[in-house]
Formats: sequence, C-alpha cells, structure tokens
Amino acid sequence: MPRGVPLPGSVPDDGLTTRQRRNQPVLAVHTGAGKGKSTAAFGMALRAWNQGFDVAVFQFVKSAKWKVGEESVFRTLGDLHTSTGAGGAVEWHKMGSGWSWSRKQGDEVDHAEDAREGWREIATRIAEERHRFYVLDEFTYPLHWGWIDVDEVVQTLTSRPGNQHVVITGRNAPAALMDAADLVTEMAKVKHPMDAGRKGQRGIEW
Amino acid sequence: MPRGVPLPGSVPDDGLTTRQRRNQPVLAVHTGAGKGKSTAAFGMALRAWNQGFDVAVFQFVKSAKWKVGEESVFRTLGDLHTSTGAGGAVEWHKMGSGWSWSRKQGDEVDHAEDAREGWREIATRIAEERHRFYVLDEFTYPLHWGWIDVDEVVQTLTSRPGNQHVVITGRNAPAALMDAADLVTEMAKVKHPMDAGRKGQRGIEW
Repeated sequence: MPRGVPLPGSVPDDGLTTRQRRNQPVLAVHTGAGKGKSTAAFGMALRAWNQGFDVAVFQFVKSAKWKVGEESVFRTLGDLHTSTGAGGAVEWHKMGSGWSWSRKQGDEVDHAEDAREGWREIATRIAEERHRFYVLDEFTYPLHWGWIDVDEVVQTLTSRPGNQHVVITGRNAPAALMDAADLVTEMAKVKHPMDAGRKGQRGIEW
Repeated sequence: MPRGVPLPGSVPDDGLTTRQRRNQPVLAVHTGAGKGKSTAAFGMALRAWNQGFDVAVFQFVKSAKWKVGEESVFRTLGDLHTSTGAGGAVEWHKMGSGWSWSRKQGDEVDHAEDAREGWREIATRIAEERHRFYVLDEFTYPLHWGWIDVDEVVQTLTSRPGNQHVVITGRNAPAALMDAADLVTEMAKVKHPMDAGRKGQRGIEW
C-alpha cells in the first residue's frame, strides 16, 4: 500500500478533509487532584505563542500568588512580541479583586459575580474571535460551584467561530464540559512533597 | 493560637529548620499515558528560569519534532538572559542522532549507547552542580528498556549535592524511581482528539 494512503476504515466519516480535520480548534480540559494542570496549560500556551498565536490567559482565582512566575514569563514574551515581532501577542488577566479591565472599585467583593463577569468577557471575545489560544485557568471551580451555568459555557465553546483553541484547568471538571472537550487529561497525585511536611518553594511552585 | 506557629505534630521530625526543609531540592516524576508530562515539566522550567535558575533540558528521544516549540521558546529565553540578564541561563540538549556535545559521527546509531552517554553527562554535571534545574525528558524509556541501570540513577539522584531540582518525564516510570521522587504525578488519558481520527496540529502539539 502506498505511503500516505490511510487504511480503509481509519478515516472518520465526518465529511472533512484531512487538512480541515487537522486544523479543527481544540477544546482541552486538564483536571484531577494532581499537579501540572495549569503548568501543562501554560506549556501549551508556550507552543502557541511560538507559532505566533495571540494568547490570552484568564485566571479564575482569588489569589494569583502561585502563578507569578508564569505571568512574568508570558509578559516578557508579550513584550518581546511587541518589540521584535517574535511569537504572538499575550494578554494576562486575573480575577484577583475584580478583573483588570473592570472599573469596579470598593470594598464589596462578590467572587461569584466576578467570575460571571470574567466569563461574559471571554464569551464576548470568543464571539469576536479576539484571540487564537485561551487559557481559562481554574475555570472549573466557578462551574463546579454553580456560579456559572455549565450548559451555557458548553454551548458557547462548542459553537465558537473560527479557529480558537481553549484550555480549561481545575479539579472537578463538570461531566458536560468533559463530554464537549476534544482532549481531557486527568492529573492524578501519586506523591507530593507537602505530604512529607515540605512547603512550596521559589522556582518550583512559583 | 498565634499565626505562624505550626499545629503540634504537623512538623516532620527530620531535624531540619523550616527554611532548610523548604529549600530541599525536588526530584519530580511525570508519568502515565496521558498528555502533559513534558509540557508540565517545561512549564516548571519556565518558573525556574523566571527565578534566575540555570536550566538544562536533556531530551531522550530519537526524534525531537514534537518539542520544537518549547525548544524555540527556551532558546529565546536563554538569549534574553545572555543579552539582558533576565531569568536564567538555558541549555537544551537532544539525543537525536548523538548528543550536541558529542563528536561522534558515522552511520552507526546505537540508541542504547547514546542514552547511556547522555546519562553519564548528566551524572557528571550533577556532581559538578552545573545547573539548578534539570529536565530529563522521556528519560523513563531508557530506564524502562534496561538501557540504563535504575539503581545507579536513583543513587546518583538521591545523593546529588547542593540544591539541584530534577524533573523526569515519560511513561512507565520504574517503581524505584517513583519511590525516590518527592513529587510524582500521573497524567492519565481521559480523552484525546486522535481517538477521533484527528491528527496533531501546529500550535497545539508543536
């Protein structure tokens, strides 16, 4: 059999050409109780940046202290893109106390509302095809806690236009989200230094 | 109870101060059949680079075509360190056909010997405390296949001097290596696009 000719039955009956199938946008979920869910998502974002993709990170966490290393490197890569044209553009948004684009001030903190505001912004950007590669870091938590409607998220993601890749991280990914995803990896904890009483350290955890 | 005072019984009886315990070098293993083993290792290396650690990557694979994105970004970061002092130094070595430091030429390819040569070089560098953060990518395979002696590797790694972090990736990590590691994460495949007949694509797999 000539090389490059697929075996009979090995090609999906989806009406797509190989190129179309190859370039389908990916929805990935990294879940489980182990380490590496976010770290692997940022590693994927590195590859995307290297291909010149416009990368946007949205961190759905109250405290972002554990991701300062990644944020610093991606801001460096974003600056490098601006100054030399290398790689792609980078935006990094974190919920913290309100989102970076938000004008909200004051003492009242409503994390559920902040999370919904983050999702509305992402949905808008997806509709506008604003970015090429999205990291929705720890986005499973507001879904798991019922702050954001899972069905609406799945509907928005599965019907997203163009070629936008989305990676979602966090424990307890809802079943409907995993069903909708193309790639689901579970990071399982086998052994962790903190089990032995060790604490996080510079250069490893942040 | 005052803040900062540990609960009775929560401190390991290892004779170390909190600072000593916190700064113990980490040996991490990413194993399992799922995605993200190497990607998360490179994400950890990003954090290490950001803290100014000297990073060295050793790829124990015959073909490195799937890691070109990471290599490109880390070489960019290494150049940035050289030109501006940002982050740490970066070295990236791949087995390919012989290692980058090797003078060997010729048609004969002995992957087992190449792998052993790679390990000997790493063991020398560890003894010299040459780097601060090592990624031994896909190093479990030459161990699993019996090309490199697992006990010798464990002995070298567990007795390594100074503060050198080591991350090892690949399926089928030997039990003795996981026993010796501080952090073991299993990446388990839940769902993968290639199951649906899709192929790897630019910006996602490389």
